[in-house]
Amino acid sequence: MSGEFDLIRRHFARPTPATLLGPGDDCALLAPTPGQTLAITTDMLVAGVHFFADTDPGRLGWKTLAVNLSDLAAMGAQPRWATLAGALPEADDSWLGAFADGFFACATRYGVDLVGGDTTRGPLTLSVTAIGELPLGSALRRDGAHAGDDLWISGSPGLAALALAALQGRTALPATLAERCRDALETPTPRIELGLALRTRQLASAAIDVSDGLLADLGHILERSHLAGEVELAALPAAPADIDSALWRDCLLAGGDDYELIFAAAPAARADIAALAQSLALPLTRFGQLLPGAETGSGQAPRLSVRDANGQPLTLTHRGYDHFA
Amino acid sequence: MSGEFDLIRRHFARPTPATLLGPGDDCALLAPTPGQTLAITTDMLVAGVHFFADTDPGRLGWKTLAVNLSDLAAMGAQPRWATLAGALPEADDSWLGAFADGFFACATRYGVDLVGGDTTRGPLTLSVTAIGELPLGSALRRDGAHAGDDLWISGSPGLAALALAALQGRTALPATLAERCRDALETPTPRIELGLALRTRQLASAAIDVSDGLLADLGHILERSHLAGEVELAALPAAPADIDSALWRDCLLAGGDDYELIFAAAPAARADIAALAQSLALPLTRFGQLLPGAETGSGQAPRLSVRDANGQPLTLTHRGYDHFA
Repeated sequence: MSGEFDLIRRHFARPTPATLLGPGDDCALLAPTPGQTLAITTDMLVAGVHFFADTDPGRLGWKTLAVNLSDLAAMGAQPRWATLAGALPEADDSWLGAFADGFFACATRYGVDLVGGDTTRGPLTLSVTAIGELPLGSALRRDGAHAGDDLWISGSPGLAALALAALQGRTALPATLAERCRDALETPTPRIELGLALRTRQLASAAIDVSDGLLADLGHILERSHLAGEVELAALPAAPADIDSALWRDCLLAGGDDYELIFAAAPAARADIAALAQSLALPLTRFGQLLPGAETGSGQAPRLSVRDANGQPLTLTHRGYDHFA
Repeated sequence: MSGEFDLIRRHFARPTPATLLGPGDDCALLAPTPGQTLAITTDMLVAGVHFFADTDPGRLGWKTLAVNLSDLAAMGAQPRWATLAGALPEADDSWLGAFADGFFACATRYGVDLVGGDTTRGPLTLSVTAIGELPLGSALRRDGAHAGDDLWISGSPGLAALALAALQGRTALPATLAERCRDALETPTPRIELGLALRTRQLASAAIDVSDGLLADLGHILERSHLAGEVELAALPAAPADIDSALWRDCLLAGGDDYELIFAAAPAARADIAALAQSLALPLTRFGQLLPGAETGSGQAPRLSVRDANGQPLTLTHRGYDHFA
């Protein structure tokens, strides 16, 4: 066999216990669980756009799969399988080994079989398709939210964007905070357990993961559910010590790459959600509410408003990150 | 909504009649046909590696999906769904429109719903994951061939490689032939109907599609089925008029990008295969046979031999294309 095949096989041929036929043929063969529907998502990461080319390959391997699993989490799906396609500028054995270790650490943690792939020479680009399962009609969709629902967010939003600001020299961070932010940026935790719990306990009416920024992604729920929304800035985590408040606000509201879940839930679910946060040891923060959509109002009402600690509306300059803006 | 989303939505939001929930949420939702297994494959195409950056975008759109469907064909699967991730150097409206038209021409032709995608800025790179269905245990695998089986190939192998040779200035082609070769290279036909017929009529013991070259891909069947093989060069299409015979031999045996199917079949199936060729209006050429593997012989026997028109063994210099060779 030639070099490419040997290299890929050595690093990426791992057991696929939940798969009829793993990598090595024209296709892999999967047996979906009878009665389940499939949730499928794809994300591409490009060096210089989504990550620095010198990012630690093990962390990059983790993140490459994690950002896809985050989309499964946002539907409440149980992760099952993934494929990986990658363009690499060179066949660097140690880089590939570290990348594979990070990728499979995430795959093993969430029970994912890597069932197929493609590797080629090219500018460093990584593309994953992930597949999960869930019962028909149970998915946490973006279009299921109701006026009057609370808005919740998991974890510690803003830290990944703060890490990026530090890496770009826009702020300095004390060492402990720097490490925590860097972990948030480079090894995000897909909120699989949260998504599964919200779905099986029927606690959420809608959900989305925060990849492009809190306001931008919340906007997708508003748009698809035909609702307006109000965000209370004071309910979200306060700026860490010595961090400029305007920078922090930008990290919180417009920073991407958090991969936390935003979800909508009826006020009646507050106690259950608090109990869930306890059982998952994961902060779940109520940060706003959903209102009837503009279609039923004046047509001029802002769809999404943010109030500061004094209850004054903030003027929003941008709501996220647009790859082609 | 911001520019990127508008652009992508305008060109790529098409009906997905065979899908529970199409693009626009964190995941698409698919309902597999009860009792069927899924065949899944992924292929990445990089500008400058797999295609020239100035390739006609409509043809590139077709090929981007077709090379993935070809893998489904090689398993005998019925195509169902695909995802598309792309990095683009710029958000060029007319390029995207033409690309989408070509992509959906292929998708419509073969009944594929595009269920998800991701688009980002970056060096032009396209990655598709395609999913098909087939009954449990019926797939045309690489490891199912038997000693004594005939070797067959569909269509007109060698033309895509000849087109590449012409584009690279290694040969000149008369206009009619040039167009035919260019079509073979740029708008390959995934042999879906052939794969389905071979599977449902149980005519083939193994199959693979020719992406890396006839000998290289045949080598995968030999390796996985633990067999040796003999190829009769004289059985394969002769060089077109005025084409150098050494160049043609190289195109036939080592040229990739044909996306024809190689399959193995018992000699008893010859009449049925000839009838199938008639009914599909697709040449099916018997070009060799499979022999017991070296494991049971001297251990020194060549696994794959090619005999020329005089029955003399050819010396093989290389067997295909290795992205990292």
